[in-house]
Amino acid sequence: MVRQLYPLVSADVALFSVADDRLQVLLVRREHAPEAGLWALPGALLQPLGDADLEATARRALREKISVEVPYLAQLRTFAGASRDPRGWSLSVLHFALLPRDQVPAVVRSSVDGVRWADADAPGRRLAFDHAQQIQSARTALRQRVQDHDLPLHLMPERFTLTQLQRVCEVILSPGPEQPVRLDKGAFRRRFAKSPDIVEVPGAFEHGAQRPAQLFRVATGFQF
Amino acid sequence: MVRQLYPLVSADVALFSVADDRLQVLLVRREHAPEAGLWALPGALLQPLGDADLEATARRALREKISVEVPYLAQLRTFAGASRDPRGWSLSVLHFALLPRDQVPAVVRSSVDGVRWADADAPGRRLAFDHAQQIQSARTALRQRVQDHDLPLHLMPERFTLTQLQRVCEVILSPGPEQPVRLDKGAFRRRFAKSPDIVEVPGAFEHGAQRPAQLFRVATGFQF
Repeated sequence: MVRQLYPLVSADVALFSVADDRLQVLLVRREHAPEAGLWALPGALLQPLGDADLEATARRALREKISVEVPYLAQLRTFAGASRDPRGWSLSVLHFALLPRDQVPAVVRSSVDGVRWADADAPGRRLAFDHAQQIQSARTALRQRVQDHDLPLHLMPERFTLTQLQRVCEVILSPGPEQPVRLDKGAFRRRFAKSPDIVEVPGAFEHGAQRPAQLFRVATGFQF
Repeated sequence: MVRQLYPLVSADVALFSVADDRLQVLLVRREHAPEAGLWALPGALLQPLGDADLEATARRALREKISVEVPYLAQLRTFAGASRDPRGWSLSVLHFALLPRDQVPAVVRSSVDGVRWADADAPGRRLAFDHAQQIQSARTALRQRVQDHDLPLHLMPERFTLTQLQRVCEVILSPGPEQPVRLDKGAFRRRFAKSPDIVEVPGAFEHGAQRPAQLFRVATGFQF
């Protein structure tokens, strides 16, 4: 290891989406050393001359790697130390982002060369750096915030039924597909009936096997 | 501002303690520019050649500034950007620490030259850098964690009564001295009666104006 006076500083992003009733996290394959060929969270080195703050670095990473702008991005935790990157002392500020499936760019909606949607609870055996640990940390924080708040609304399409919203919450709260969590339908509906964050779309219903289901949308001005 | 390729990286610490039924945070006066003479959280610049990780940097800051080793220290959030420090792009990883009053070194138990215990809800009008914002952030996180967990146990002396424990929780939960929070005594006792984290000290009582009160201690192996 080279003796160094400054740490490497980067922002990495755990970008979550829900597809096929599974919580997924986006991985990109590293093109260059170190850890070339391994899957990693999208990230970018801080550019002090260009980035106003770390959120700018994180958003630039998503633009450069998968050409996406996310509506929800939050800083989560900083991973740092002398031994997590073979290049030397490094510091990675983990962010997490949520993207409704219908806002994922078509070109990366399924896994393509160099981009992969991994199961958030089993992202793979060998990831670059400490990114497996970072994903686990982001996964835990996401579960916690769903219990506390209305965060899952950031994962919903423009119109959705209460059943779909409940399903997304259950997917996030489940420790994994083998241990599905089922929320009580009555309690769930009472919680969101009181919420100012979703509103009915007048006269809009989804027609399926059951009776028509009222469609909702996220209230204008909703903020986490 | 100098054009720079590397950000300044530091760890700062919001060290909380409870004294006289008030939640206090420790401030140190800055000796050198920038912001010389202003009060600030204790902190230190990262030394990549010496610090194994950021917790090491934070603990070194407390040793150097006030000669203290804290039992509880956790990373909270990273403040970073081009304009928060006049020296240029900088990144400060905020930690928060809790110290029972009887573990505060005698020399800094009250405010002395260069060291000040400030009201955590009103730490002063003008602090260095963005430290007022950092204190507010740490204060909010502390309140949140007390609602969720048994964190206040880290602020208790070796032996304490349930009334003292309830008082510390109320101090932390209060938005400020003008809006005191009072917890229901019965509900509070039921919560901690179920907790495996505190145990009775057999035969030990505090004798005051009222009937003798059972003394408790934190259970061996208690971890946040």
